[in-house]
Amino acid sequence: MKSIDYVKVARGEKKADLVLKNCNVINVFNGQIEKGDIAISGGIIMGIGNYKGEVEFDVKGKYVAPGFIDGHVHIESSMLTPPQFAKIVMPKGTTTVVADPHEIANVSGIDGIKYMLESSKRVPLDVFVMIPSCVPATAFETSGHIITADDIDSLKDEKGILGLGEVMNYPGVIYGDKEMHKKINVMEHYVKDGHAPNVWDHELNAYCVTGIKTDHECTTVEELNEKVKRGMYIHLREGSATRNVSVLSKGVTNANSRRLLFCTDDKHPEDIKKEGHINYNIKLAIKNGVDPITAIQMATINTATCYNLERIGAIAPSYLADLVVFKSLTEIDVDLVFKKGYLVAKNNRALFEGKLLENESVMNTVNIKKEGLSFEIPLRQSKVNVIKLIENNVTTEHVIRDVKIENGLYVHDDSLDILKIAVVERHHKTGNVGLGFLEGYGLKNGAVAMTIAHDSHNLILIGDNDADMFTALEEIDRIQGGIVLVRNGEVVDSLQLEFGGIMTNKDVSVVESKIKNMDSILRDMGVNEKVDDPFLSLAFMSLPVIPEIKLTDKGLFDVASFKHISLEVDEGDA
Amino acid sequence: MKSIDYVKVARGEKKADLVLKNCNVINVFNGQIEKGDIAISGGIIMGIGNYKGEVEFDVKGKYVAPGFIDGHVHIESSMLTPPQFAKIVMPKGTTTVVADPHEIANVSGIDGIKYMLESSKRVPLDVFVMIPSCVPATAFETSGHIITADDIDSLKDEKGILGLGEVMNYPGVIYGDKEMHKKINVMEHYVKDGHAPNVWDHELNAYCVTGIKTDHECTTVEELNEKVKRGMYIHLREGSATRNVSVLSKGVTNANSRRLLFCTDDKHPEDIKKEGHINYNIKLAIKNGVDPITAIQMATINTATCYNLERIGAIAPSYLADLVVFKSLTEIDVDLVFKKGYLVAKNNRALFEGKLLENESVMNTVNIKKEGLSFEIPLRQSKVNVIKLIENNVTTEHVIRDVKIENGLYVHDDSLDILKIAVVERHHKTGNVGLGFLEGYGLKNGAVAMTIAHDSHNLILIGDNDADMFTALEEIDRIQGGIVLVRNGEVVDSLQLEFGGIMTNKDVSVVESKIKNMDSILRDMGVNEKVDDPFLSLAFMSLPVIPEIKLTDKGLFDVASFKHISLEVDEGDA
Repeated sequence: MKSIDYVKVARGEKKADLVLKNCNVINVFNGQIEKGDIAISGGIIMGIGNYKGEVEFDVKGKYVAPGFIDGHVHIESSMLTPPQFAKIVMPKGTTTVVADPHEIANVSGIDGIKYMLESSKRVPLDVFVMIPSCVPATAFETSGHIITADDIDSLKDEKGILGLGEVMNYPGVIYGDKEMHKKINVMEHYVKDGHAPNVWDHELNAYCVTGIKTDHECTTVEELNEKVKRGMYIHLREGSATRNVSVLSKGVTNANSRRLLFCTDDKHPEDIKKEGHINYNIKLAIKNGVDPITAIQMATINTATCYNLERIGAIAPSYLADLVVFKSLTEIDVDLVFKKGYLVAKNNRALFEGKLLENESVMNTVNIKKEGLSFEIPLRQSKVNVIKLIENNVTTEHVIRDVKIENGLYVHDDSLDILKIAVVERHHKTGNVGLGFLEGYGLKNGAVAMTIAHDSHNLILIGDNDADMFTALEEIDRIQGGIVLVRNGEVVDSLQLEFGGIMTNKDVSVVESKIKNMDSILRDMGVNEKVDDPFLSLAFMSLPVIPEIKLTDKGLFDVASFKHISLEVDEGDA
Repeated sequence: MKSIDYVKVARGEKKADLVLKNCNVINVFNGQIEKGDIAISGGIIMGIGNYKGEVEFDVKGKYVAPGFIDGHVHIESSMLTPPQFAKIVMPKGTTTVVADPHEIANVSGIDGIKYMLESSKRVPLDVFVMIPSCVPATAFETSGHIITADDIDSLKDEKGILGLGEVMNYPGVIYGDKEMHKKINVMEHYVKDGHAPNVWDHELNAYCVTGIKTDHECTTVEELNEKVKRGMYIHLREGSATRNVSVLSKGVTNANSRRLLFCTDDKHPEDIKKEGHINYNIKLAIKNGVDPITAIQMATINTATCYNLERIGAIAPSYLADLVVFKSLTEIDVDLVFKKGYLVAKNNRALFEGKLLENESVMNTVNIKKEGLSFEIPLRQSKVNVIKLIENNVTTEHVIRDVKIENGLYVHDDSLDILKIAVVERHHKTGNVGLGFLEGYGLKNGAVAMTIAHDSHNLILIGDNDADMFTALEEIDRIQGGIVLVRNGEVVDSLQLEFGGIMTNKDVSVVESKIKNMDSILRDMGVNEKVDDPFLSLAFMSLPVIPEIKLTDKGLFDVASFKHISLEVDEGDA
């Protein structure tokens, strides 16, 4: 038995496989820092103290923390397959993620979820999966696949599955939607992630009475406090578009910190490379007054406890040797990362290859009905409902504007900051096209097309002229998904995302330089400098579960009343 | 689906079954006290706020805490069957216990464990069971049954089973005993309770590397701190014989309190009735400087988290309506107890009956070989190894004394505070008798006999003359287990313990008055007033895993060297 070997090593009678000498060990159990060696055998921590190893590595007094855990992430938002994703997050100290493969599930269904589980096995990152609960996010859009309660039931006992992914359909939960409740009941004894922005009082009680356990949508300390009070674990999120750590850090106290976690949710690869991953959440929290060890607890043991991850999240005998080494307890700039005792990253570089899994079931997923397709918008009146982009936020504002009409059709007006936006159904060739107006983006003489469009990942297009929008659509169809930029009739750049139209096998450096180049082209084309990430912002314009107004392939959608509305303002609304 | 009803109630659209009005709700998530109503339906908490109910009950501003959890208890130590035990602990606010039915398992094996699970179902108390890991406690005694790794494997998935009971054979763990490790490996993914008094440094690493998660044997703050550091959850124990809460409370800090729990381990019924149960641990902790809400967390959410008990240990939507109502936040004198929404105790009285399960497999368990039985102790020299009782502690001191010899046999000397002690094997009629000497008990002109004798529950006898010891043995045999007092040749009182010789079906009031009467007889017979509980102290004299020196049916046992030793002091030892 291995355990008999382990006690020998722990007792110091037998040499450990590896000993990290002279560590300043961060102890998440007592909140203290302990000087000593860490002995590792078989990928497991044998003991802390004074040890000898077959291999010894002098850490020279640097800090050693447990590997960081991202408590809620859509890997797909990195636009990278799980192996490529692992290569960029592990050098930042992330050794475990709780992933909700909700994006690929919208495109490829159960095959998509299985692809994420399978492809993750080829790299050292531990990827635990929550089964997406809302595919499609609503009935108001057309997704590639539907995940039913029966599908969830059939998946729940697969290795690597932890629970139910964020239950975004919070009105469905609170007001008793049967299929939603069926999914929750199927997962009764599993962890269930929540998503309930701005839900309070009796409605929050109703959401929580179903056993949903977490929330990552808090944007104020007041909301965080209210949800902690009702028993939720709260993720402090720092993604590319949603950045809540600085504000929420003010709400971290001795009394509530054990219920607080970190997550990234959606983060672009260039941001991960530039800022960091969960180590950045920790750093920001510390900058905003959180005690460094409390912040590290929020990135490790708290998350492990919330998700029932045994033997992860601490440096203690029997725990996995997932270790992060760094010099500064405020900067958390990671020097070395060990996963199950193996050195997997050094000086910001992964020491493993991102072995890729080609999988037909998640490729060639773009299927557009081009016959009869039109972006023309007939209008009987000039007063229209417009989606106003809120900078660096995935919520939008519902505004009413006067637009120009010629011959009964909307025409672009250069004096207004309003663009045409379209969502084209691209999974089943239905021919569905939703059309609307977007304010605050600022593009001129061209179009952008993307098959990343939350959550159904239809084709989202924006432009100031229909011809460029058509050109962009044709190119998307040719490359079978990705991001395409068209300027004055020409494709000026594109990034192919061959996995489901949302992820690529390419190395992050390729993606990064593409995104960088396309971003600078967009700025040159007039895109608002205040919009931090013009791709991510666009990708959320089609997500009908986030206030106030969005666009799906079925048309304009008002989140408050939870129904489609017409482009033209009704008499009553004006 | 029930959950659809629940959201209606939580939203306030439908009346709750029961609403507790005007509560001061103790919130274990944020450490605060919240004024409001608690709405309950189907035994589950629907919400906290302003609610209407079919039945409303005005709590009039009293405190309402989650039901208390005893994190480690041998129910058998109450000498009551689980239903009778429930009747005395629930009025004290205990609504859930994690029980290790180690005592009955030593007598009746798997049948004993199943009896505890089955008989608990007849009362509202939630009894979760840890499978006893050390039956027998050592190879140095004869138990009624042996629980093997295979037995554990066959039991582990039964409903109500949580994990592996306290692994008392810590030398076996640390030094690689194969059967011990086999048991641990069988329970790899389950919670494993520890028992490692005074284990430190590399040996503690070795103990913990096997994944053992808790310890309830700490007696100093230093030991508590060391074990928390190595990842253990620590129970602060307050039993009848072992009282650690006052001392350990000094070690409770903001940083470590989430890793701390409460337990009683072994507590006599009269102490439970007089002092309380887990509410007494809380009260003592508060008296010794622990913040009241921290203390309540240690009695509720911390224990639930440690043992992966979902939906227990907090007052929040989706949690079981296990609620304790009391007036004073320092005294924790319990007025009302609700279990799953039902009022189960009021003003210190249970409102349910202790329905009993008669079970042949755990009755008529006394089986003594009387032919050839003798308590004579031949000695070649007067210098002998003596067990010295340490008052109010289950450890003993190993002392060497000069005793009187006549005709080659030990004879009692009234001028010495030394009695003869015997452990008679009583399960298999082997005829085994262990004989020894006990100092510090103080009995005159009589004998005490008990079939409660940790952990094998053989017959333990003490007396100042052999004739009275024989009389006591005969009476034990006749009543098939219990406690018998003999004075000057006559049975002066007895308590029959018809279940395994360790528990009774009788009401606690009968047990209490018996124990009280027997205690006063013993005092009259000269038993040392400083020995708080003369029965419990005696019952631990046969437990060979607790230092320093004990007696089993196989003879005198030295815990330090972990082997039997002779009564006569070797030349080298003197």
